[in-house]
Amino acid sequence: MIKLNTNENPYPPSPRVLEAIAGTADASVRLYPDPEAHALRARAARVYGVPADHIMAGNGSDELLALVLRATIDPGDRVAFPVPTYSLYETLVAVQGGAAVRVPFPDDFSLPPALAAARARVTFLCNPNSPSGTLVPLERVEALARALPGPLVVDEAYVDFAREHALGLVGRLPNVLVLRTNLSRLSQAAGEAALGDLPWMEANLARIKATRARLAAELERTGFRVPASEANFVLARQPGVDLGPVARALAARDILVRHFAVPGLEDALRITVGTDAEVDALLAALRDVARP
Amino acid sequence: MIKLNTNENPYPPSPRVLEAIAGTADASVRLYPDPEAHALRARAARVYGVPADHIMAGNGSDELLALVLRATIDPGDRVAFPVPTYSLYETLVAVQGGAAVRVPFPDDFSLPPALAAARARVTFLCNPNSPSGTLVPLERVEALARALPGPLVVDEAYVDFAREHALGLVGRLPNVLVLRTNLSRLSQAAGEAALGDLPWMEANLARIKATRARLAAELERTGFRVPASEANFVLARQPGVDLGPVARALAARDILVRHFAVPGLEDALRITVGTDAEVDALLAALRDVARP
Repeated sequence: MIKLNTNENPYPPSPRVLEAIAGTADASVRLYPDPEAHALRARAARVYGVPADHIMAGNGSDELLALVLRATIDPGDRVAFPVPTYSLYETLVAVQGGAAVRVPFPDDFSLPPALAAARARVTFLCNPNSPSGTLVPLERVEALARALPGPLVVDEAYVDFAREHALGLVGRLPNVLVLRTNLSRLSQAAGEAALGDLPWMEANLARIKATRARLAAELERTGFRVPASEANFVLARQPGVDLGPVARALAARDILVRHFAVPGLEDALRITVGTDAEVDALLAALRDVARP
Repeated sequence: MIKLNTNENPYPPSPRVLEAIAGTADASVRLYPDPEAHALRARAARVYGVPADHIMAGNGSDELLALVLRATIDPGDRVAFPVPTYSLYETLVAVQGGAAVRVPFPDDFSLPPALAAARARVTFLCNPNSPSGTLVPLERVEALARALPGPLVVDEAYVDFAREHALGLVGRLPNVLVLRTNLSRLSQAAGEAALGDLPWMEANLARIKATRARLAAELERTGFRVPASEANFVLARQPGVDLGPVARALAARDILVRHFAVPGLEDALRITVGTDAEVDALLAALRDVARP
């Protein structure tokens, strides 16, 4: 199976990460993990140039998103975000009794002025955005933060694949929160080791970016429209065409891509950047089944 | 340091658990974990005799407690629990905008009738309770569940050390939730392996229970009152005496026990059941510094 539907990294982590995990498999697992992840946060502070006390570790961005909403909104408070984007925002706002303000992205996925104008209690920006992969430039993110009355949560789950990020705004602007992350006793050790082997990650990033450029170009040659991606996936569109059948035809060949049965997104496939061999197999299958 | 302040297990897990963790340290860590933990839940279903679809896996009881409250209460709803107990209940109720109804345990830590009479939206029962270690018998738990208008959450974090548990009520009574747990890709594998080596755990339980009996008896001989513990810790009291100085004197000897600076608990120390050698060292130090 070629699995390109959930934006996972096609390459393994640093051997040092695997060594750290295996090295954690000793009698110490009977102990509670450090609830404040001091060692991991200290290393992250050195790597990212952010003070350790500005860093919080969570079990993935999902936990941090939930915590932000629990900490900031009361029932009925408005939470704004551009759409389409990560679907969990809507769920978490509903769970917390807030009111979601969905501001449509324009066709080019640039920052919609209505987002700042909504003046919500909390504003989310997934950047690079999913499922589009597009990046709002840093200067526009900063201007947005300055215009907002409340917190701006910049969800940078995919930012390692982008040309710039918003960590420099943390601390400099009081209302900016930037999300990355992941945890537990075992993953704290793994996270530490991962941050200790950046060249390994950078080599992987370079490979994925190169494959991304080739994938986008080939998709466009095949007749798709592909917004410029700064993530580890691309969004391939055929305006007005329901691509559900194409996704199912690919699945029948054991190639999984993501199709959203959501108004305005039926004409798109979100495709994770896999290995070159995986991308070649996808493109060959797509030429068979899509024939735009 | 002899660390007896946080109810950790003094013995290492099964070698199979460590093998499972080390075995998870391969290229697959690049993938998302199974969000529904199917393999772990299937094994837990076999071990505990509960249908897999009645089981939910969370990152520790803390996450499950938070989820229960987010799912069930609206601002102002009442949440009842006997006190003293796990302090996180109070925090989580406050975070969710609920109203905590604290029902004092009687001196013997038996179930207070006022708990059912409170008729709260949600009722918590830590059983065995922390910090007392006492167990409300199963028949009383069942009667409580039948008397309540809403969910009864039985927090069995320490139940492996007790003579009976409430899992048999799950499914049979519609309003009973029982909490155990733990997670992440790595800990799912570890949890599976742990459930696959029950004799290892049972041998540890037997050792801890034997040490617990000896610890409680020695503490009583030394002049403490010790409620019958069915957990992996005991509560040692000297009614009316502030034991804070004793806890600090022990800490000065690198022996950590838990003292609560909370009205009604200042006269108590919560002591985790350690190895026999650790307990011997504690008892010797206690005879020096406490002299009741």
